[in-house]
Amino acid sequence: MYLPKGFMAGATASGIKPSGKPDLGVVSFLGATAWAYVATTNRAAAPCVLRGRNLYAAAEPLRGLVVNSGNANCATGEQGVRDDLRLAELAAEFLEVEPETVLTASTGVIGVPLPINKVAQKIGEIELGGSLASFAEAIMTTDTRVKLSEQELPGGARVVGVAKGSGMIHPNMATMLAYLFTDAAIPAAGLRERWPAVVNRTFNQVTVDGDTSTNDMAAIFSSSLTEAEPGPFWEAVEAVARDLARQIAADGEGAEKLITVRVRGAYDEADARLAARAVAGSALWKAAVHGNDPNWGRILAALGYSGARFEPERAVIALQETVIYDGGAVPFNGVALSQAMQAAEVLVDIDLRSGEAEAEAWGCDLTEDYVKINAEYTT
Amino acid sequence: MYLPKGFMAGATASGIKPSGKPDLGVVSFLGATAWAYVATTNRAAAPCVLRGRNLYAAAEPLRGLVVNSGNANCATGEQGVRDDLRLAELAAEFLEVEPETVLTASTGVIGVPLPINKVAQKIGEIELGGSLASFAEAIMTTDTRVKLSEQELPGGARVVGVAKGSGMIHPNMATMLAYLFTDAAIPAAGLRERWPAVVNRTFNQVTVDGDTSTNDMAAIFSSSLTEAEPGPFWEAVEAVARDLARQIAADGEGAEKLITVRVRGAYDEADARLAARAVAGSALWKAAVHGNDPNWGRILAALGYSGARFEPERAVIALQETVIYDGGAVPFNGVALSQAMQAAEVLVDIDLRSGEAEAEAWGCDLTEDYVKINAEYTT
Repeated sequence: MYLPKGFMAGATASGIKPSGKPDLGVVSFLGATAWAYVATTNRAAAPCVLRGRNLYAAAEPLRGLVVNSGNANCATGEQGVRDDLRLAELAAEFLEVEPETVLTASTGVIGVPLPINKVAQKIGEIELGGSLASFAEAIMTTDTRVKLSEQELPGGARVVGVAKGSGMIHPNMATMLAYLFTDAAIPAAGLRERWPAVVNRTFNQVTVDGDTSTNDMAAIFSSSLTEAEPGPFWEAVEAVARDLARQIAADGEGAEKLITVRVRGAYDEADARLAARAVAGSALWKAAVHGNDPNWGRILAALGYSGARFEPERAVIALQETVIYDGGAVPFNGVALSQAMQAAEVLVDIDLRSGEAEAEAWGCDLTEDYVKINAEYTT
Repeated sequence: MYLPKGFMAGATASGIKPSGKPDLGVVSFLGATAWAYVATTNRAAAPCVLRGRNLYAAAEPLRGLVVNSGNANCATGEQGVRDDLRLAELAAEFLEVEPETVLTASTGVIGVPLPINKVAQKIGEIELGGSLASFAEAIMTTDTRVKLSEQELPGGARVVGVAKGSGMIHPNMATMLAYLFTDAAIPAAGLRERWPAVVNRTFNQVTVDGDTSTNDMAAIFSSSLTEAEPGPFWEAVEAVARDLARQIAADGEGAEKLITVRVRGAYDEADARLAARAVAGSALWKAAVHGNDPNWGRILAALGYSGARFEPERAVIALQETVIYDGGAVPFNGVALSQAMQAAEVLVDIDLRSGEAEAEAWGCDLTEDYVKINAEYTT
């Protein structure tokens, strides 16, 4: 997938990953680039997150992005702060820009010093080009596939996104990172104002295991080289973010199925998001999906503890488009519905009948492989 | 285990459980009995919980308790409300007391009408006696063992507890129920005032899968037949509640190990409870415990998103009494520590160094069997 005008990317294998797979990616912003940024609220946030927040507070345009995988550079003390700064400096030198215009990110093992000298030795070998493919591969950890998405606007501007993540947090192995690039000419203030709401509706509605990473971030960068209308632009941004969010959920550790939960009729959007996320994140419902069990009691119970305002005797629940609960048990063909659940995507539609708001959330089934992946990896 | 003075119990197999195992238990309170009660906050709460709340609001003494397993009588509509009332009436008739002095509880499958006629046919066969053993067995669902605990006070009064539960919620199969019985003469007002705090420190600190049941409840009943001092009494109550909480966690679905998390140095008790529960409930840490992986990054990350106030660079984490993190990585013998984790109980000690408060939480390792139990049970 090709980047919009104003961006070039490349990657290499620097040796941070013992496997020798690509682990260092750089995106060059050809001119001063507006951006917006949301990062993890985890108190044990990594130096790259703390640095990113400071850059964002300064509200200056950026010139580049550097990401390493294989090492989260988190819980690495003062050395970690220095190594993160050095990562910015090395990328800045390579891109011939100032370090304070380069956003950094690290993802991988926690508590192990970042082998920054490997970055120093190899970053010069990166060849920049218009494709995002090698960068998308270099930011992967336990991901089984690259995650890319794009939309084109009337007038020719494009929105292109890349993400990684196969658990909300994997201190040893993973993290969610998402970057959107666009050439649409959108004022920086508008980007900053509206990006958090898009993230809330998309990336923050993905749940794999309920854990929140120390290194998560979602950012959007605009070269502003092509005229665009805000309406279609934000639709495109949300479509790309939503598509990446779904790809992350579908590639959850050990996952065999994507679970999509749509809630409507909620009292407000916050309630809709809470309700959808509770169902998508319920360990019991995730296990039931794995077993093709149309077990609506687990959905109802998750709605009940979600915090969303509703009355169980008014709610309606449909599974794979079959109503299975309408204020109470509804007869349905369990064998047929169990067969319908043997699909790559299991869709739960919920009407809370408490208002007009709606939201979606995405998760994945809970499998024996999730346990194996996370139990058998030993530090 | 024998009940304190003023209580008799018994049970039978009424046929609610298809297996034919005991599924109906009754406790007779020989006189007017003071009580205190905490129930689930789930919005999809079962009729027994709604009825229990109303009884509790009336603040009258009770004369009995009836519990059925095998059917939660939840999401069963108006019929469910009538069946729950009928359960109280049948127990009241059997005990020769008024229905509004009998607390009811149901645990098991959701959304299926309670076969109340089976209760009507069999409740008369129950033989009441001083032992709590048959009652303890009759309230089990996916539990693999009965959960009983007792303490004796100076002066001879006793506190005896029984519980069930092997996941925080199992709409199809389980729920947490806990009942403490005592003959200690404690004023009803004191019971009502202090019981919720005990529950917060004990039963509410158990996490198996993060789900909150539609039918959970924890109650204490006092016949007040024996003089007792409040100090030793509340110590005994907390010891019994804590012991039962640990038994519930250790018998979590698929669990092979008990995880105990002790947090000290927290800013306040609420923070201490949050922090302990986040670690005990982290899917990633639970999987690491299953794999004997001393993966402190997952503990630190869980503390980071717990909401508790602390600085990662001041915190200390010990695992099986070995310090593995002290404001940053600490060298340790990974092989030896992994071997030490191959115990029935894995102990995490955390000092947040943010204050003086402390709390404990209990969980269990996440195993392939948890997934199997919850995926392969089909409605």
